Amino acid sequence: MSPEVARLGHVALETPDLDESLSFYVDTSGMEIVERTDETAYLRSVEEYDHHSLSLTEADEPGIDHIGWQTEAPEHVAAFAERFEDQGLDVTWVAEGTEAGQGEAIRFEVPNGHRFELYGEMAKPEPPKERRSQLRNRQYDPTDNHPIAPNRIDHLQIWDQDAFECAEWIREELGFQVQEYYDLQDGSRWGTFLSACGVKIDLAIVQSENDDDDAAVHHIAFEVDSANDLFEAHNVMNENDVPVDGIGQHGISRGEFMYARDPTSGHRIEFNTGSYLTLDPHWDPVAWEENDISDGDDHQWIGGIDSLKRVTY
Amino acid sequence: MSPEVARLGHVALETPDLDESLSFYVDTSGMEIVERTDETAYLRSVEEYDHHSLSLTEADEPGIDHIGWQTEAPEHVAAFAERFEDQGLDVTWVAEGTEAGQGEAIRFEVPNGHRFELYGEMAKPEPPKERRSQLRNRQYDPTDNHPIAPNRIDHLQIWDQDAFECAEWIREELGFQVQEYYDLQDGSRWGTFLSACGVKIDLAIVQSENDDDDAAVHHIAFEVDSANDLFEAHNVMNENDVPVDGIGQHGISRGEFMYARDPTSGHRIEFNTGSYLTLDPHWDPVAWEENDISDGDDHQWIGGIDSLKRVTY
Amino acid sequence: MSPEVARLGHVALETPDLDESLSFYVDTSGMEIVERTDETAYLRSVEEYDHHSLSLTEADEPGIDHIGWQTEAPEHVAAFAERFEDQGLDVTWVAEGTEAGQGEAIRFEVPNGHRFELYGEMAKPEPPKERRSQLRNRQYDPTDNHPIAPNRIDHLQIWDQDAFECAEWIREELGFQVQEYYDLQDGSRWGTFLSACGVKIDLAIVQSENDDDDAAVHHIAFEVDSANDLFEAHNVMNENDVPVDGIGQHGISRGEFMYARDPTSGHRIEFNTGSYLTLDPHWDPVAWEENDISDGDDHQWIGGIDSLKRVTY
Amino acid sequence: MSPEVARLGHVALETPDLDESLSFYVDTSGMEIVERTDETAYLRSVEEYDHHSLSLTEADEPGIDHIGWQTEAPEHVAAFAERFEDQGLDVTWVAEGTEAGQGEAIRFEVPNGHRFELYGEMAKPEPPKERRSQLRNRQYDPTDNHPIAPNRIDHLQIWDQDAFECAEWIREELGFQVQEYYDLQDGSRWGTFLSACGVKIDLAIVQSENDDDDAAVHHIAFEVDSANDLFEAHNVMNENDVPVDGIGQHGISRGEFMYARDPTSGHRIEFNTGSYLTLDPHWDPVAWEENDISDGDDHQWIGGIDSLKRVTY
Repeated sequence: MSPEVARLGHVALETPDLDESLSFYVDTSGMEIVERTDETAYLRSVEEYDHHSLSLTEADEPGIDHIGWQTEAPEHVAAFAERFEDQGLDVTWVAEGTEAGQGEAIRFEVPNGHRFELYGEMAKPEPPKERRSQLRNRQYDPTDNHPIAPNRIDHLQIWDQDAFECAEWIREELGFQVQEYYDLQDGSRWGTFLSACGVKIDLAIVQSENDDDDAAVHHIAFEVDSANDLFEAHNVMNENDVPVDGIGQHGISRGEFMYARDPTSGHRIEFNTGSYLTLDPHWDPVAWEENDISDGDDHQWIGGIDSLKRVTY
Repeated sequence: MSPEVARLGHVALETPDLDESLSFYVDTSGMEIVERTDETAYLRSVEEYDHHSLSLTEADEPGIDHIGWQTEAPEHVAAFAERFEDQGLDVTWVAEGTEAGQGEAIRFEVPNGHRFELYGEMAKPEPPKERRSQLRNRQYDPTDNHPIAPNRIDHLQIWDQDAFECAEWIREELGFQVQEYYDLQDGSRWGTFLSACGVKIDLAIVQSENDDDDAAVHHIAFEVDSANDLFEAHNVMNENDVPVDGIGQHGISRGEFMYARDPTSGHRIEFNTGSYLTLDPHWDPVAWEENDISDGDDHQWIGGIDSLKRVTY
Repeated sequence: MSPEVARLGHVALETPDLDESLSFYVDTSGMEIVERTDETAYLRSVEEYDHHSLSLTEADEPGIDHIGWQTEAPEHVAAFAERFEDQGLDVTWVAEGTEAGQGEAIRFEVPNGHRFELYGEMAKPEPPKERRSQLRNRQYDPTDNHPIAPNRIDHLQIWDQDAFECAEWIREELGFQVQEYYDLQDGSRWGTFLSACGVKIDLAIVQSENDDDDAAVHHIAFEVDSANDLFEAHNVMNENDVPVDGIGQHGISRGEFMYARDPTSGHRIEFNTGSYLTLDPHWDPVAWEENDISDGDDHQWIGGIDSLKRVTY
Repeated sequence: MSPEVARLGHVALETPDLDESLSFYVDTSGMEIVERTDETAYLRSVEEYDHHSLSLTEADEPGIDHIGWQTEAPEHVAAFAERFEDQGLDVTWVAEGTEAGQGEAIRFEVPNGHRFELYGEMAKPEPPKERRSQLRNRQYDPTDNHPIAPNRIDHLQIWDQDAFECAEWIREELGFQVQEYYDLQDGSRWGTFLSACGVKIDLAIVQSENDDDDAAVHHIAFEVDSANDLFEAHNVMNENDVPVDGIGQHGISRGEFMYARDPTSGHRIEFNTGSYLTLDPHWDPVAWEENDISDGDDHQWIGGIDSLKRVTY
């Protein structure tokens, strides 16, 4: 049996002030608190069934604790553990329930410092009774949803000192597929856009600007229905004095975006829509070269989001 | 001085159960309560500045009390009163404040039984402090708006036994402009679509199906941003067990619609978007003939909304 | 090795007048002709890479020749053939190129009369040079796309005399997953909504109204970007005197739709948007019961599309 | 009689290469050529009835010839002429037909160098027969419209050395209403946003960056249906190597925008949607102060479109 990763599950973030950060993620951005302990809040989006797609833990400094991926079957967790230990990786087992709602898991570092978690099982708590949709394929009754509530976690983007090395490891060891990649004129790979689920980008790995930059998370993206929703989300961010990094369209992935940052922790989220599905069993990775997408004043496929603030692990 | 009507202001409805109707208009449909007395609630939409665009009064039976139009200047109210009294119409003066937030007004009947009100001044109360937008050209902070909150009242449609006579009177006496009209094959006018403000349809007058039908209101329309919003509003109506009369696009006006009915009173509202502006000072009314828009199985410009439930004055 | 189906590939339709039908699919609906022989035209949508997702062949009567599914790997075609022949099914091999652009394939009937095709390989011709997008992840330059051009084939719905039997066979033999199903009060299964690709509905199988109805295709759905596009497509259909079956939202799948029919052949297409992805490796099929979604005057989750015209194989 | 301006009619631009500029306005941006002479092309948008809302004339340098406004009635042109001549302004009469499709007009300069034209009558040519919509309230059949064709001219923005003086003159002499204005901390007025038609912004006048800058046009805006259309227009601009100045939302007017520039002439157009109507007969101008809308890194109500390229008269 070859163990497989099924999908991006959640990201575990650290914030210096949990209540303040919840104000951003819940009151401003429309996510739902599923469970809260003293130190940690577990959140999900309104179309998600699993216990959480985001957790926030109070800590001295803003940080990323780990990025959680769900395996195709529960027994794949142990299979991955065995493989990584054979390679000499430091694998830590996390008991069921340590992370609320989650089954047994492992944690380990991928190059060059990103902390990944693999788990097989996650509880699927129902919304509170008064919030449940009458539709059997909808979680929350939209009557009481936040006006900009996103649907579900979509992908995340990370910065790495050696983005190619990081991407290659994840492709080989975790079996992610390459959906798109972007090469600079010097032949080096600036970014690799990988899929865990097989039909869309789940993880973008891009080159850090400086060689000694620590591994960092660039943004976590949540899906919304349409471009209209990006503008309304942008309005709500501005009303709440949330720093934003613009509205635009990526050339890579063709996703339309609105970026905002938790004022307390600096973590960036993206409201995202409009990307495509790769249902083709013979998908050829999309190969970009530096000149394909101008990043100058006049072209904005990428949108000039050059020097964004960083939060590390 | 020739007095002028500036715009559609509000509709005053009666309902057998005010609390139940508020549940529909506020909790389900996203309108805001600006003021409430024992018997009457005054509502507006989130982009409106005036005190109310809808009022609901508890009464034995569902009904329409009046349709309120704002004059171009306050002194136009008396000028209209004088004109109508000269014609022998029964004009009733309504003192300032009788209708909350409203200045002195007159009420009278237009053919064939529709009760109109003309007023010049209306208070513009600010939203509660915690709901105010930071933007100086926005009323309510969208963070706390209802997810399907419409923007503003747009138009209303009424049924009349002699729709042509009613429309002609309103055109001549109130100075409304004809934006579009629709003639049947027998040469009779089925519907006239009039503008008070001069740039869009504010009042549609259509022929009752039966000669002895009392004057009635077909629907009151509120504007939303986009077609996506019609679907989300439709979802919310269904979640709340509100009867709906479909999503579609009108040929006349080219407006896109979603119809829903207050379960308590039977009054129908439309969520509406996508119509056009007539800025042309030489606008020629659009002249439709019966064969222009098929209403059969296969064409749906009108949408087959044939036998809708009626609420009278 | 257990052979797998990867995705819905194409539907092969028959029409009494190929040129007239192309006027509907291409001039009105915005699909692209990739290749044409005397008798057959091969079409795709503007975001598709494969040679065709629809073929039209001139024939005496309107009909469905087959429904084509792509296997996960080319060698899976033979593996399926062997399995079906072992079961006594009548399997016909179709040589490479018989269907333009397509590798070797098999055809066979599934209960109760639906003609399926399995193939592993399909050519991916580039758009004509003057139509190519500058973006490496986009096929056609949108500058010259038809204003309502859909993106890609999404799913199809078929009518069967014994919809449960048909769905069960496809689930067991082809490995499709059940995304949603709908049971009547008498305990019978009215509809099963299956996925070949694993993340969305690809095939809906619903019960025929009459026991002796032949197997038929209800509609073939093509994806568009947003609800706005449904209205614009509806407009274009009306302008071209194409019969339409309404705009609305399905409860099952939560897809928003606009139905239109080729005036020449009667085949129905859906313009579709807004459904959800099932990335969950432990997806529980959504179980609907008859009372969950009212189909009466007042609720329109399904939309009252009751007695639609049928085209059989 | 007090003469009145009814609406923004058209802008007459100059370009060094008419064919190249038509490639931008027609082939890329989706406007329609209504008439063309050797030196001038007259264009309109697909929902417009009048002969043109934009004209392009070949000239040595890019420039603006004039900005055309339609008066409420034809006889208002002479009334305005008399008034301006009494004030000592240099008024030039333009004979009927000098500008194709247009009746008698006058041209004159408003402070500080903007060339305005007033005319009362404009021909309303039908679309070519094969392009006419079946709908009596739609001009062009959308089947053959360009995929990003805008609906109609919406407004224009001009730069002036003394924006307050310019706006005051236009308000007093032409009777435009102030919809919004923006004051800097030093008390000076940075921008005034005026309405000719009375229900929306038709003319924005903003302060030039340098005191000796000549009068210039910042952009001419054309309306589209929804935010989705801004993204598709942005895509089409990029495909055609057209320089763009971003997608975003204005605080003032709350319009959502996409800016692009004719590569040949440098004239900027805006694709615009989402602004509001002022139907209120007692509209209070929206008064902004410098601190209301941050223009820094973190807030983007205005969008940081600071140093845009200029084209003068």
